[in-house]
Amino acid sequence: MPVNLMATDPSQLFAVAGMRIGVAEAGVRKAGRKDVTVFLLDEGASVGGVFTQNRFCAAPVQVCRQHLRGGQPIGALVVNTGNANAGTGQAGLDHARQTCAALGAQLRLPAEAVLPFSTGVIMEPLPVERIVAALPAAIADAQPAHWARAAEAIMTTDTVPKAFSARATIGGAPVTVTGISKGAGMIRPNMATMLGFMGTDARIAPTLVNRLAAELAEASFNRVTVDGDTSTNDSFVVVATQKAGNAPIDSLDSPDGQALKALMLGVARQLAQAIVRDGEGATKFITIAVEGGKTVEECRKAAYAIAHSPLVKTAFFASDPNLGRILAAVGYAGIADLDQTGIDLYLDDVHVARRGGRHPGYREADGQRVMRQAEITVRVLLGRGTASDTVWTCDLSHEYVRINADYRS
Amino acid sequence: MPVNLMATDPSQLFAVAGMRIGVAEAGVRKAGRKDVTVFLLDEGASVGGVFTQNRFCAAPVQVCRQHLRGGQPIGALVVNTGNANAGTGQAGLDHARQTCAALGAQLRLPAEAVLPFSTGVIMEPLPVERIVAALPAAIADAQPAHWARAAEAIMTTDTVPKAFSARATIGGAPVTVTGISKGAGMIRPNMATMLGFMGTDARIAPTLVNRLAAELAEASFNRVTVDGDTSTNDSFVVVATQKAGNAPIDSLDSPDGQALKALMLGVARQLAQAIVRDGEGATKFITIAVEGGKTVEECRKAAYAIAHSPLVKTAFFASDPNLGRILAAVGYAGIADLDQTGIDLYLDDVHVARRGGRHPGYREADGQRVMRQAEITVRVLLGRGTASDTVWTCDLSHEYVRINADYRS
Repeated sequence: MPVNLMATDPSQLFAVAGMRIGVAEAGVRKAGRKDVTVFLLDEGASVGGVFTQNRFCAAPVQVCRQHLRGGQPIGALVVNTGNANAGTGQAGLDHARQTCAALGAQLRLPAEAVLPFSTGVIMEPLPVERIVAALPAAIADAQPAHWARAAEAIMTTDTVPKAFSARATIGGAPVTVTGISKGAGMIRPNMATMLGFMGTDARIAPTLVNRLAAELAEASFNRVTVDGDTSTNDSFVVVATQKAGNAPIDSLDSPDGQALKALMLGVARQLAQAIVRDGEGATKFITIAVEGGKTVEECRKAAYAIAHSPLVKTAFFASDPNLGRILAAVGYAGIADLDQTGIDLYLDDVHVARRGGRHPGYREADGQRVMRQAEITVRVLLGRGTASDTVWTCDLSHEYVRINADYRS
Repeated sequence: MPVNLMATDPSQLFAVAGMRIGVAEAGVRKAGRKDVTVFLLDEGASVGGVFTQNRFCAAPVQVCRQHLRGGQPIGALVVNTGNANAGTGQAGLDHARQTCAALGAQLRLPAEAVLPFSTGVIMEPLPVERIVAALPAAIADAQPAHWARAAEAIMTTDTVPKAFSARATIGGAPVTVTGISKGAGMIRPNMATMLGFMGTDARIAPTLVNRLAAELAEASFNRVTVDGDTSTNDSFVVVATQKAGNAPIDSLDSPDGQALKALMLGVARQLAQAIVRDGEGATKFITIAVEGGKTVEECRKAAYAIAHSPLVKTAFFASDPNLGRILAAVGYAGIADLDQTGIDLYLDDVHVARRGGRHPGYREADGQRVMRQAEITVRVLLGRGTASDTVWTCDLSHEYVRINADYRS
């Protein structure tokens, strides 16, 4: 059961002018489910993306990078679930390119104008013929209003489709942002989540879109973790269709640029946090805020050490205020000169540890009360500076083991 | 159920001349179990130790380091289970020193001649009065033959006591080595395991014993992981009683020094691997060998990335040859210039992946056959050098979650 996450009512999702979305059944892994999605972009769209830093990155990630670097305007995206096309060698690269060529041919675009994405099982050959055969149906299905259908079609072990929208007046005109994402395991994005797609109709200098994607990912998808496994396929793509009436944005630091980024970051964080709320087996949504560090990096290290500790995660699952495990994780986070006697720990409003030891006023009943909640904030004060950072994670439950022990069966 | 691990028959454990061991019931956490152990050393023993690198190290670890640095000959060790005396601030340091002083007083030794060790729950006050009250009974119980009793008394979530012995002729005389250890969670030692104690009667220059302890730990306890959590209390101590008739060893690089180290390393590895075999919820014992690296460090990084991946660990639990997860872990291990097309993967004798892709001859039935075994060797060839390293780990099961969700209840 996801933590405080319900599918967004499709009527609450705004279409993005200049983008049409279609889905189809290719039978990649299982019959009878929508497993291929296409995004068709009107001419003039600007596309930026960030991708996994896993050295064992999947074939479609390699092809995406090439096509984005190539400078050919991007006219379409194609996504399949059921197979990650990772660990597939040269054949995998060929399959990803064949998919691009087939979609391009139907849209009168070169293969290099198409970005491919895959998610699912690793090291199985991609059934490229079945995907190509499904493309005409996906194109025929394409509508601006189909974001919710796409959110559903890109799911793997997700239990809830993830889609969010926002709208604001920027540069004198209404600007729309809509995005979708999927998790739900192998989640410790390092540049981007498993898969995330955002569209905006904003007018923005095409050269800024790639940096916008990177900055959004850094403050959203790169701050969540489910199991610490950085996927081979993480991809996050931003499309700016340039269809809105706003005064063109030529700097991310201008007032309009900042307003657009804030609007998009709101959606990106919802998408990223939704992945954690629907993390495999998650029963709790945990915010880990580390403050008082010398650098943001050391705060992040400490936050991730807590977020990845199986002992901390199982304690959250059990609602057991075994909070020394949190301090132990801070201790091994790799902050070389950390002085334990400077550390304070709060669980929501409960002051648990002071200067490295149990707070004299701490009562286990108070810790217990917070631990029973579905949403918990862990606050660690390092007491050595003014930097801070925050990550979001979930607990480790029986269900995580069951899902991942059974994933392929 | 531990993986191919049974309690060593106490009659197979050799006493170490110059060491007597006694246990007692202090009721630290639960009544009716032996939870205090003392090691009494004859005059002339040399003691070395290595300790956790967790910055949140426990009070007894801090006191051990002080007492070893102080240069006072060590005459006794005292160990309690049920409470880790970690995250306990100044009171914790006072309690550890009170324990040393109390045992010292009964042995006519200064407090600084005693090393304290604690294991159990973090951030609870140590019931020092109960421990002190139990010391006379532990001293009265002391016998050279009591290694097996101690192995049992230091257990926490361990299901099997861990004790091994070895004997060889070195420098013209029989030399004996006996050791005990305990796990079984919060295991990713970084200098030493949770708790490990080894004794030898060998004659060896006292100044070498500390380096001997460090080198033994590096090649044994520092190569195992259960859950990636580096404990606050990891301690590994080597006692050389100097009672054997061997020609004194004055260099670890001499033939006799190497022979002693090899004899002790055999026992240390058994102790370390026993911790993994009895890892919380373990059903498989996994050896991860990474070869063909540029440096030992990058091989170790890759091996630990595999060993810590929850997805890899759950796949082992499920006997599911979902082996792309192993390649994905290698990919995010942090080897910056890794070329995936150079990587081969073997599961025991089965060649699974060649040059980064699925081996054409690989059949899932072969992978399945190996995955069903209780002992599995994962071999990754990085294809970029001649360095190698090996770590040992276990799978991640429902039982791990159950144990750690219920640990304090």
